[in-house]
Amino acid sequence: MAIEEVDTPALLVDLDAFEWNLGQMARETSDKGMRLRPHAKAHKCAVIALRQISLGAVGVCCQKVSEAEALVRRGVGDVLITNEVIGRRKLARLVSLAQRATVAVCIDNLDNLEELNTVARSSDVHIDVLVEIDVGGGRCGVQPGEPALVLAERAQSTSNLRFKGLQAYQGRAQHVRAYAARRSFIDQSAEAVRRTLDLLSRRGLSCDVVTGGGTGTYPFETASGVYNELQAGSYIFMDADYRRNLNDVGTEITDFRQSLFVYTQVMSIPGRNCAIVDAGLKALAFDSGMPTLEDFPNIRYCNPSDEHGVLDVSEAPGVLSLGSKLKLIPGHCDPTVNLYDWYVAVRGGRVEGLWPIVGRGAVL
Amino acid sequence: MAIEEVDTPALLVDLDAFEWNLGQMARETSDKGMRLRPHAKAHKCAVIALRQISLGAVGVCCQKVSEAEALVRRGVGDVLITNEVIGRRKLARLVSLAQRATVAVCIDNLDNLEELNTVARSSDVHIDVLVEIDVGGGRCGVQPGEPALVLAERAQSTSNLRFKGLQAYQGRAQHVRAYAARRSFIDQSAEAVRRTLDLLSRRGLSCDVVTGGGTGTYPFETASGVYNELQAGSYIFMDADYRRNLNDVGTEITDFRQSLFVYTQVMSIPGRNCAIVDAGLKALAFDSGMPTLEDFPNIRYCNPSDEHGVLDVSEAPGVLSLGSKLKLIPGHCDPTVNLYDWYVAVRGGRVEGLWPIVGRGAVL
Repeated sequence: MAIEEVDTPALLVDLDAFEWNLGQMARETSDKGMRLRPHAKAHKCAVIALRQISLGAVGVCCQKVSEAEALVRRGVGDVLITNEVIGRRKLARLVSLAQRATVAVCIDNLDNLEELNTVARSSDVHIDVLVEIDVGGGRCGVQPGEPALVLAERAQSTSNLRFKGLQAYQGRAQHVRAYAARRSFIDQSAEAVRRTLDLLSRRGLSCDVVTGGGTGTYPFETASGVYNELQAGSYIFMDADYRRNLNDVGTEITDFRQSLFVYTQVMSIPGRNCAIVDAGLKALAFDSGMPTLEDFPNIRYCNPSDEHGVLDVSEAPGVLSLGSKLKLIPGHCDPTVNLYDWYVAVRGGRVEGLWPIVGRGAVL
Repeated sequence: MAIEEVDTPALLVDLDAFEWNLGQMARETSDKGMRLRPHAKAHKCAVIALRQISLGAVGVCCQKVSEAEALVRRGVGDVLITNEVIGRRKLARLVSLAQRATVAVCIDNLDNLEELNTVARSSDVHIDVLVEIDVGGGRCGVQPGEPALVLAERAQSTSNLRFKGLQAYQGRAQHVRAYAARRSFIDQSAEAVRRTLDLLSRRGLSCDVVTGGGTGTYPFETASGVYNELQAGSYIFMDADYRRNLNDVGTEITDFRQSLFVYTQVMSIPGRNCAIVDAGLKALAFDSGMPTLEDFPNIRYCNPSDEHGVLDVSEAPGVLSLGSKLKLIPGHCDPTVNLYDWYVAVRGGRVEGLWPIVGRGAVL
C-alpha cells in the first residue's frame, strides 16, 4: 500500500530514519562503554522496545507501572520504572510485575520505601531500588549527598529491597538550546552525582547504576565519567522541539533524523492564504509549540482546534488543494504518540506494517 | 467503592453536577423552542449520548466519521457530522453509516459535494447535507450569501443529496470573556445567517436547520431568531477555560457546574513550596492553560511534564502529604477526555460506574 492511500490523521514512522536513529544510538553508547536503557514512554510499543534490546539495550525505562505491564506482557524482560510508585495498590502491581520480569523502581521518600518493602515481603519478592536525586530538574528526587545516603542505607537494610544505584535525570536541560549551556547543566548534575557517590562509597555502599541523560544531553552524561546508563527515548523519533537544540558550532543537531510524522490532509480551503487540515488538538501535542511541515517550510501551522489545524499558506499560494496530504513534525513526540493506537511503519513511500502502541493511555 | 480508593490519574464525572447540567440545558432549549443536538466530541461516550437523547436531544453532533461510527454501533440513531468529510475512503464509511442511522454532513466545496453524491449514489443511499458558512470563526466554510447558495442549489439538484440547512458555528466567540463581546460576535453571525436565508428563500430553497452555538454563546444563538438547533457540548462538564467566561454582570457564569475532574495524587514532596502530582501532559490537555484545583484555590498547578505536574504550595504550606488525592479541573475538557478509556462516575463520594469512552482516539 502506498503512503498516499493511508487515511488521515495517522501516525507515521519512517523506517529508514527510525533504523538510522536506532543504530546511531546503539553505536554511540557501545563505543563509549555506556549501557543504554531507552525510555519507552516515548514509544509505548513492544515492537520498538524489543528492537532496541536486540541492538544491545539492557532493557527499557517506563514512567508508569501500567506502561511496564503492557510491555512485559509482550516480552520485554527488564524494566526500570524511572519514577516513584505511590500507594498500596500500585505497589502491589509493581511487585506482581517483578515476579514476571526484572523490575527496578525509583524512591525519594522513606515512608514509600518502607511500604514498598512491606508489599514486596508479603509476596516474597526482592526489588532493586534506585534513589532519585534532584540534580536541578526541580521535580521528584531528594537532594544529592546526605538525603540520598539516608535512603540508600535504609533500602540496603530492608528485607526485600536492594539499593542498586542513583537516578540523576536533568529534565530541564534537555531543551536548553545552546550546546555549552546544556553541557554546563550536566556538568553540575555530574558534580552532584560525584559528591553523592563519594559519600555512599565512604559508607561502604556500592552503586551499580547511575542513570540519567536524555536525547538533548546524552553526550554530556556519557563524557561525565559518573553516569553509566542512559535513558534517552526521543532519539528514535525526534520532534520539532528537539530539532531546535543547537550543536557545538551553533547549527541544528544532526545526530538523529526525523522519523515520526502525523500524516494529515487538507479538508478545506476557505481562502487564498489559508488551508485547513484534519489534525488538531486530538491528533498532535501542542505543549512544545506548533508542528512544522516536513516538505513545505514556507507553510506554517498556526492555530489548532480540537480536530482542525489552520495553515498559513500565504508564502506558498496555490501549492495545496483539497485532499493534499502532508507530513507534520510534532512539536513534542511523547504526548503525540500517546494519542494513537498504532504506528503506520513506512519505507520508501510504502506501508510495511502497523505497530500497536500497547502503552497508549497507560497513566496508572 | 469510595472515591479515595480510585487509583490515579483517573477521569471523574461528578454525577450530581453532570445531571444538573444535562437538565439545565434540556430545560433551557425546550423552554425556548430550540432543538438540542449536543456535541459528542466533548464526551465521546454512548452512555452520555443516550442520556442526552432521552432528555430530549434530537441526536448528537460528531466531528469525525469514526467517532460517529463508535456511537451508532452502541445505539445512537441520529448524527450530524459537523465537519467536512474528504476523500473516497471516508466518504464510503459515511455512506455506509447512513445505511444504519440518520446521518447528515457538512460541505463547503463543490468537488467534495459531487464526490459525496457519487459515493452515495453507488450505494443507493440518500444523505442530508448542511452547507457550512464561515461566520467569523476562520476555519472551514464558504462565505455567507452567494457562495452558500451555489452549494445549496447544487446539493438540491443532485441525485442522492438533500440540502437540509446551514451550519453557522462561531468557534472564536466561545471563549471571549466579556458577555457583550460574545453577544456581539453572535449578532454578526446571525446577521450573516439571515442574509443567506433570505437569498436561499428568494431562490425557493427551504432551510430546515440552522445549527451552531456552543457552551459559551448558546443564549445568543437561541435569542437570534435564525438558529433553530444548538450544538453545545462542553456544558455537561465545563472546564477551567469556560469558567473564565463572564456573565452580563461581569461575574463567573453559573449556568453549569463543574462535573469533570482529573483525579491525581501527590507522588513526591521535594521541598516546602512544592509538591509533585502524577498527572501531566498525558493525563490532561494544556492547550487552554493549566488545570486548577477544585478544593485548594491557594495551590497552583504551575508546570507539567509528560507524567508529572509541579504544584506551587507556597500559599498552603503543609496541607498536602505523600499520597494526598486531589481533583484537578482541566483547562480544556474535550482533549482531556480524549486521553482516557473510561469515566469513573461518582456521586456523594462513592463510585457508581465506569462509562467507556468509545470514541477515544477516533480521529479518522
